Amino acid sequence: MNIRFYHAKILILKKEKEFSILEGELWIKGNKIVYIGDGSDTKRIYEDMDIPYIRWDREIDAKGNVLMPGFKNAHTHTAMTFLRSYADDLPLQEWLQKKVFPMEAKLTHEDIYELCRLGILEYLTSGITTGFDMYIDPVAIAKASKDCGFRMMQTSGLNDFTQSLEAVEEQFYQINEMSDLTGFVLGFHAEYTTGKKLLEGVANLAQKLKSPVWLHNAETKKEVEECKNRYGKTPTELTDALGMYAYGGGGYHCIYFEDKDFEIYKNKGLTAVTCPASNLKLASGIAFVHHFLQDGISMAIGTDGAASNNCLDMFREMFLVSGLAKVQGKDASLVSAEEVLYMATTGGARAMGLDACDSLAEGKLADLIMVDLQQPNMQPENNFVKNIVYSGSKQNVLLTMIDGKILYEKQKFDIGIDPKEVYEKANAIIRRMTK
Amino acid sequence: MNIRFYHAKILILKKEKEFSILEGELWIKGNKIVYIGDGSDTKRIYEDMDIPYIRWDREIDAKGNVLMPGFKNAHTHTAMTFLRSYADDLPLQEWLQKKVFPMEAKLTHEDIYELCRLGILEYLTSGITTGFDMYIDPVAIAKASKDCGFRMMQTSGLNDFTQSLEAVEEQFYQINEMSDLTGFVLGFHAEYTTGKKLLEGVANLAQKLKSPVWLHNAETKKEVEECKNRYGKTPTELTDALGMYAYGGGGYHCIYFEDKDFEIYKNKGLTAVTCPASNLKLASGIAFVHHFLQDGISMAIGTDGAASNNCLDMFREMFLVSGLAKVQGKDASLVSAEEVLYMATTGGARAMGLDACDSLAEGKLADLIMVDLQQPNMQPENNFVKNIVYSGSKQNVLLTMIDGKILYEKQKFDIGIDPKEVYEKANAIIRRMTK
Repeated sequence: MNIRFYHAKILILKKEKEFSILEGELWIKGNKIVYIGDGSDTKRIYEDMDIPYIRWDREIDAKGNVLMPGFKNAHTHTAMTFLRSYADDLPLQEWLQKKVFPMEAKLTHEDIYELCRLGILEYLTSGITTGFDMYIDPVAIAKASKDCGFRMMQTSGLNDFTQSLEAVEEQFYQINEMSDLTGFVLGFHAEYTTGKKLLEGVANLAQKLKSPVWLHNAETKKEVEECKNRYGKTPTELTDALGMYAYGGGGYHCIYFEDKDFEIYKNKGLTAVTCPASNLKLASGIAFVHHFLQDGISMAIGTDGAASNNCLDMFREMFLVSGLAKVQGKDASLVSAEEVLYMATTGGARAMGLDACDSLAEGKLADLIMVDLQQPNMQPENNFVKNIVYSGSKQNVLLTMIDGKILYEKQKFDIGIDPKEVYEKANAIIRRMTK
Repeated sequence: MNIRFYHAKILILKKEKEFSILEGELWIKGNKIVYIGDGSDTKRIYEDMDIPYIRWDREIDAKGNVLMPGFKNAHTHTAMTFLRSYADDLPLQEWLQKKVFPMEAKLTHEDIYELCRLGILEYLTSGITTGFDMYIDPVAIAKASKDCGFRMMQTSGLNDFTQSLEAVEEQFYQINEMSDLTGFVLGFHAEYTTGKKLLEGVANLAQKLKSPVWLHNAETKKEVEECKNRYGKTPTELTDALGMYAYGGGGYHCIYFEDKDFEIYKNKGLTAVTCPASNLKLASGIAFVHHFLQDGISMAIGTDGAASNNCLDMFREMFLVSGLAKVQGKDASLVSAEEVLYMATTGGARAMGLDACDSLAEGKLADLIMVDLQQPNMQPENNFVKNIVYSGSKQNVLLTMIDGKILYEKQKFDIGIDPKEVYEKANAIIRRMTK
């Protein structure tokens, strides 16, 4: 599709963590942004592309609303939608052992495909254009994402109890070759579920496949203490010592980090993905976001799965990242809206190796959203970025576009299936499991 | 208006902090709920009212969606919408002294009226049907609320620098008599802005008017320490010793509470209003919500003003109340969704003395909202209350009704003015002030 947006306020990444607004037009040809400007210099575009004109499939009057990069959900378990509000307000271990694990054991390949579609619908309402998923059946997730038109990077949830190195290597090839929308890098669930032999296997495979490595890292204090008891090292030290980070990667949650962990992340160029809502709801703790940023460590934001959060909403996460840092550091000036928006867009894309959709610029992939300013929570227009980060909500998402295709517009979805059918299937799955 | 909802899931307060869902109909005659039931026992309604039929102005198919009491925003400064995203990410004192106070000094009566309308539009999108406001010009707030059809309770922001006891007494009469939608109880800004003489005056006036008394209480550590230095008492002890609570009342924020403060709140039946988003963003701290609840102290939830929050959204506040309590107490079972929903609805109404709209029941005022379950964030339907509290968003608010009138439906407002005009006026006000 060739789509021209006009009368738009376009959020441009001026330089690292600094945004500016350009009033004008944004053109999409196929799946790429080919022009951003005030409309006075469009001739060069035709000359560059050596074409006389673009035949527009749609010309959209943005009516002064904001076009910005879609949010990148840098840690999630999309298919866990089936456990949303199924077992809340329980102590962590009881929740995990008695409620989550037994239900996950009942999941089929088809279930995961269906439940992933439900999660994708929710992402679209929140302006999320890419997920970074870790779950039981990555091929089902990749298929569902491709079929919906959703861009999904994945990492492996490998551990001693599920899958094998061989299966993971096969998934690596299969998912990276499946579609331009799907990708896969190495990972494992967490140190506490993965023995040393398997960890060494992951490190070797990362070398072979030249892949980054990801894991749940320092989500709870207990996890770090047990790792130190086992190895005399934190999970970060251990995985680094095993040579896992030759091609980068990072960790999810990263709450109980020690000085040497920050040091390793800094020196190896790793990324810390913070999941504030999940960390509150499971009483895990509050990550030292300000410390990471001060050290110049790359950061991104994730919703985690719907079983712990319970919604997949980047607006809520963004407010939390800043608000929690401020209260934790007892300083209202810590972690600005601009830093948070950068993490939620550019930071997330780069964490996944998707620099091609890390911002709105000519030549980048057309993964973008339109934010409605004609809503009371966006008025007055004192500061667009602060309005979006501190006051924005899913209600402000007018349109979500991935790879040049509009998948969500004015609360209507276009993912090849009626949402009602997706809801019915999700309800049928949980009914079957609990009967 | 006489309105009949059918095919509804109606959220009923079964007993304290326990909700149940009744599938059926809810009838409104004028401004009151006259029937809730499955539709099989409606004959008694006509007999009770001694009428042969009700002529319906509208019959609304709820399509299986949830009808529930509107949210009660128990602490706010509605007109502060003009400072939304105007001065964020600054240290608290700089924000207050250099940004907020100088701008507030420029506000006119008309400004406050207009800015209050902007806040009310936002409340409606979030399903908030009542506010408990404290601001500079309560009469302007009351007028705007009445004109919009919004139910607004207020308390005085009296302090040594603005207003007088005489003015407050006059406001008490004027606002309580203005409309069924407007009410006013005594209050003062905070101990640190109000000298002892004036505090004694408030206590005397409370006796004379038989009014509860409200104040910002223990929002910061500094505030409590300074009060103890001045009086050898916490703000709670001081105000209690002055005899302020003969007719009840309570405090906003209530973060730095000491054992004796909890004791006083418990013994005097006072209410603690927590404002978690504002408390994070201004780095004030985290209230001990679990401690209040454990002591059986009444609680309610407020957004605070848009200058500190920056949005007026009860969904965000609800998630935070539970999430922050869990992480603070290192226990994921603390402060359940049911407790939070009770605080956000019944608790808030009772804090304001508005028992007539504290729940959905026959005879109660028709202040209610319809929540859209046909959205991905509400699926599957494992638990309605947990879905609403942990996963709900403004996008799920299909309809907001106050006093029997639908003021917001499918993203359209009916408050007697085009929202665009409200936005333009708010922008003009801030432009005039900053020019």
